[in-house]
Parts: sequence; C-alpha cells; structure tokens
Amino acid sequence: MSENKITYIKNENVKEKPASDQLSFGKYFTDHMFIQDYTPDKGWHNARIKPYEPLILDPAAIVFHYGQTVFEGLKAYRTEDNTIQLFRPDKNMERLNHSNDRLCIPQIDEEFAIDAIKQLVEIDQDWVPNAPGTSLYIRPFIISTEPYLGVAPSANYQFIVILSPVGAYYAEGINPVKIAVENQFVRAVKGGTGEAKTAGNYASSLKAQEQVASEGYAQVLWLDGVEKKYIEEVGSMNVFFKVNGEVITPELNGSILEGVTRNSVIELLKSWDIPVTERKITMQELNDHYEKGELEEAFGSGTAAVISPVGELAWEGKKMVINNGDTGEIAKRLYDVLTGIQYGKENDPFDWLVKVK
Amino acid sequence: MSENKITYIKNENVKEKPASDQLSFGKYFTDHMFIQDYTPDKGWHNARIKPYEPLILDPAAIVFHYGQTVFEGLKAYRTEDNTIQLFRPDKNMERLNHSNDRLCIPQIDEEFAIDAIKQLVEIDQDWVPNAPGTSLYIRPFIISTEPYLGVAPSANYQFIVILSPVGAYYAEGINPVKIAVENQFVRAVKGGTGEAKTAGNYASSLKAQEQVASEGYAQVLWLDGVEKKYIEEVGSMNVFFKVNGEVITPELNGSILEGVTRNSVIELLKSWDIPVTERKITMQELNDHYEKGELEEAFGSGTAAVISPVGELAWEGKKMVINNGDTGEIAKRLYDVLTGIQYGKENDPFDWLVKVK
Repeated sequence: MSENKITYIKNENVKEKPASDQLSFGKYFTDHMFIQDYTPDKGWHNARIKPYEPLILDPAAIVFHYGQTVFEGLKAYRTEDNTIQLFRPDKNMERLNHSNDRLCIPQIDEEFAIDAIKQLVEIDQDWVPNAPGTSLYIRPFIISTEPYLGVAPSANYQFIVILSPVGAYYAEGINPVKIAVENQFVRAVKGGTGEAKTAGNYASSLKAQEQVASEGYAQVLWLDGVEKKYIEEVGSMNVFFKVNGEVITPELNGSILEGVTRNSVIELLKSWDIPVTERKITMQELNDHYEKGELEEAFGSGTAAVISPVGELAWEGKKMVINNGDTGEIAKRLYDVLTGIQYGKENDPFDWLVKVK
Repeated sequence: MSENKITYIKNENVKEKPASDQLSFGKYFTDHMFIQDYTPDKGWHNARIKPYEPLILDPAAIVFHYGQTVFEGLKAYRTEDNTIQLFRPDKNMERLNHSNDRLCIPQIDEEFAIDAIKQLVEIDQDWVPNAPGTSLYIRPFIISTEPYLGVAPSANYQFIVILSPVGAYYAEGINPVKIAVENQFVRAVKGGTGEAKTAGNYASSLKAQEQVASEGYAQVLWLDGVEKKYIEEVGSMNVFFKVNGEVITPELNGSILEGVTRNSVIELLKSWDIPVTERKITMQELNDHYEKGELEEAFGSGTAAVISPVGELAWEGKKMVINNGDTGEIAKRLYDVLTGIQYGKENDPFDWLVKVK
C-alpha cells in the first residue's frame, strides 16, 4: 500500500543547536520531520521529509477526542568513529503495528518506515549529540485526522517521525531511584490497551505520578488492575528483580508493554548464563524475599534510561531498601554492556544495530 | 483565574448549511468556535470566538503522544417558538472539571464556560436545525499543547468549543437495537480513567465495537474490568434494566461515566414514583431474571440518542430477546418526556433548561 519514494523539502532556516551538555529529555527538536498520509483510497502515500513545523488539524480531528493514536520511541547513537546507528528499529516498527492493530489503525510498511527513519536521521545527522550518554531520540507516531465526532475509527491518518537530541539520563552516572507501589490508580488492565503503546495509558498514569512525586518518589510501581497483587511495570519501564541469583520479570499478560530493552535484557542474561524467568510475581512474594534477605536487586528497563536501578521501594507504609540503596551488580553490567553496544564500544553479537550512514 | 471578556472575530466567509433533514452525527461544523488559552503564568486567558478553522499545533504537543485531553457533549435545541435552549450545561461543566482533576488539567471556570457556550451558540444560532429530532451538538474539549516528550502534565492547554448540527438519532422514530456482551476487551477499570470523559476510554472501545459490528450488533455491553461479571455501560451510554417493575442501573464505581441523561432518567423515575435503584448487577443475575420472565426492559441513556432501547442481548452464545424486541413502556415514556422537555413541548419542573437567547 505504500510507495517507496520519499520527497525531500530542505529546511533553509535551520535552528541553532543546543550544546550537547545542555540537553534534557524531549525539549528540543531538529530541523526536519517525516510525514506520510493515509486515506482509504490511496493507503499510505505522500511520504515526505520536510522542515519541522506545526501540524494543521481540524478541531474535530478524532485524535483530539477519542485518542486514536499510537507511538514508538527509539534512539540513534553516535559512536567514537562518528558512525550513527539505531538500536533494534525492527522491534519498534513491529510493535507499532501491534499497537495499530489494537487501535484499529491501518498497518504500516515496517521496512519502509525504518528506511524513512534512516533517511531523516541522516539528513539531521548534525543533531546527533556527542557528549557522553547523549543520543538522538526518535519519536514515530500515528494520529487520526478525520474530522468526525462519531466514536469510530478514523478514515484518515498521518504517520509522523520527529527527532529530539536528548541528554544523559543520569547526569552523574547510573543512580538508584526511590519507587512507591501504586495502590489506588491503574495504568492498564487485561482487555484494555496496556500492551499497546498508545496515549491513553500514559494519560492515566499522570495523576499517580503527580501524587508520588509530591511524596518524594521518582516513579510508581504499577500493580495489575484486577487483583492489585501482581507487579506489572515501573513508571513507563518494564521491571526486573534479582532474587537468590535468579532474575525475574513479570510475564507478558496483555496489560504489560513488550519493551525492546526488556527483550534485550532477557537475551543478554541468557547469553551470560544468568537464570532469567518471565512469570507472575506478587508484591507479597517480593516482600517475603526481601524479609528473608533474598531480594538482591531491582531495576527498570526502557529506551530513555536503558537501566534504572531501584534503591528503595515503598509498599503499605513499609520501606524496602534494596542492595543498600546502591546500584546492583547485574544492573550495572546490563547498563554498561547495553550502552556499550549502543555506542559501538562493545561487540554487537545479536546484530541489534542498524547503521544510518 | 479567568477573565470575563470574550473577543469576537466574525467569520466573513460563512459556509452553506446542510438541509435539516440531511444531517447525520458530527459531520458538519458551524462558522465559529470558542478558544481559550492556559499558561502557568496567566491561567486561562485570551477567550475568543473566531471563525471555525484548523488548530496549529507543534507535532510534539503532549495531546498527540500522551492523550492528556478531556471533553464533553451536550446539545442546544430549537423550540417551536424559536427559543434556543441548552439541557443541563451546568452538569456537563461540573463533569468537565471532574475529568480535568483525573487528567491533571487545570480547573476551568464553569459559569464562564457556560456563558461562552451561550454566546457561541447565539452567534451560530442559524445553525440550530429545526427538523424533528435534530439539534446542535456542542463539543467542549481541552487539549494539552506543550511540545514536550517527557511523560508529565502539560504546562499549556487550549479549551475549545465546536458546534455540529446533528440529525435525529432515530430516522424512523425510537428503535430497539441488538447488543452483544463484551467478554474480551475492557473499556475501563477501577483506578483507571473510566469515570472521566477522556480520549483513552474511547480509543480502547474501538476494537470491541468493530468486532461486534461485523457480527451484526449495534453496540457492546461492557462488563467490569476486574471480574468481567458486573454490567457497566452499553456502547458509550449508561444502561438501565426494568426487572419486576423496578428500574436498576449500575451504581457509580469509579469506572462508569456519570451520565447527565442517566441522572435525568433517575430523577424523572423518582418523580413518577417508579422504583429506581443504583446497585451492582451481574450478567448472571440479569440472565436469571430473563429466564424467569422478569426482565421487562433494557435501554441505554446518553446525550446523542437520549434513550436507546435494547431489543436483543447476546451473551455466551445465547440470545435474550427483551420485550419481544420492541421498545418498552418506560423507555418510551422517558424518551417522550425527556425530548419533550428539551424541545420545550413539556414543562421543565426541574429547571434543567438554560435559554441561549
């Protein structure tokens, strides 16, 4: 359904780039963007890379009212020899189509989308920062554009990719955070949209995040929406625990997002012969392990932070201090090897990298 | 936080209006719209009524990515003596602020918003159709506009009101529909966003609706997301059952939207001395009543359809035909009285109407 030609309209008024050590997350955007339109008669068409500029949308566009939208997040990394490379973009495009299916959005051509991302990043390659820990965050997203107030899938869509140079997640190196278990709010439930990367899941999380932040916690630990017993995610990351030498992560159940970093962590651990299990785990079980001194590490995994160690977990008035509040051995090793692969300092035995140029 | 002056920029290029008997739902929009901006320093400000035109938004605006948005739906009715009146706009603005709270969006000034809606409808009063059963649908909504990819509440917002002339919901009078009980997908769950009128709930519903439509059903009956036992809503309406002379509707539980029509139905039934109960009800209980011949009526309630009788309910391979597939006595009376009040043909003993001019 898609044509393979991408029109290019050069931005003649390029912006001043922020200094590589002045970046935070998702605040600056590059000079160009990718857009492709969908209509029922033409399918996906009119692929173009053009100057980064505002979207012009009817106020009745379905995305504003019924949230029919999906997105992805991945990064381009600059290596020491100035290669620019993407980390597992095939997994992100595969997941984008999985999300599309749940949200009744037409499938995209995954290979074409990867090619579009590569072209866009190559055009804006000077925006890929080079300070340690920095990268170019890539945000592909699809919005429903038909002006119609009936609750129904849109006839028309736009597939858009924007780029944002982002700073090191940890300004002073990898650093454990304090997490509070969320008992009131629910991010997603089986049968809902939790396994899709779609706006509503994140909208639902804002209130919980606001509450725990006011109590001094960095993120919430999400429990399942049905029994409020089983651990699902941490903030907008997947979560791992090391118990008695075994690494455990909640199994995919329909309300947990299938993280690309999650998958990479599992593959790395297996390659290191460290036992890793995907299964259900309750807060009660975790607490029992903690009481017996068996909870050795806890960490989140995601594209933004890569690995985010959990130093303290608050649950039902109790504070569990994990690994004395320090970064655990496995978390540190995963962080070093994953970022090492991403920045080209380590071998890439799994062929995870895709060179942009 | 809001100023009380509304700037008016007249549309000099008014559109041709569709014929009153050619309207469907949410397809046509009037000549003007209301917009107000929010910034942290100024609060809600710059209220203006201006020509209906596209929104211009940064592609990184939070609404596209994290669905931080809320909306409302109400109607303006033209009476036989050419009065134009709104039905219970105070309830809608109250609910909008309730939704704002859940979505971390700043509160609006409810009275000012009602005044803005009245001014907008008065300016576009020629768009209020006069064919039987037609009305002017009013869609207030708030979108998060800050260009930022961090998962956090937006700094900036726009509060917008658009208007759409809509046709009679039932082209040939009130007409029962076939409904299928949804066992796979979930619309909302306790702790989620079900009681807020926000995009994600509707995004989640699209897939279920698509599936049942392909099987010949008009809507789904939503069960609770936890036990999949308790009845919650029907399509995007609240739901009522008449059992042995008593009218029962699911009690508000955090995942059910508090419908304005639902509330009006309850008040009317009470005023008629018809027993009405808000309580939990399972599909199993409903089925047991059906088997014993005690299920006398089923109907949905909402702004679009007002009252929507259910003629057939499919559950676990079984088809329950309710009231021989005909509109029940209570549903008919509620529909007649509610629309009678809305169109000024009946007295308004509850002071539900607000005159626009």
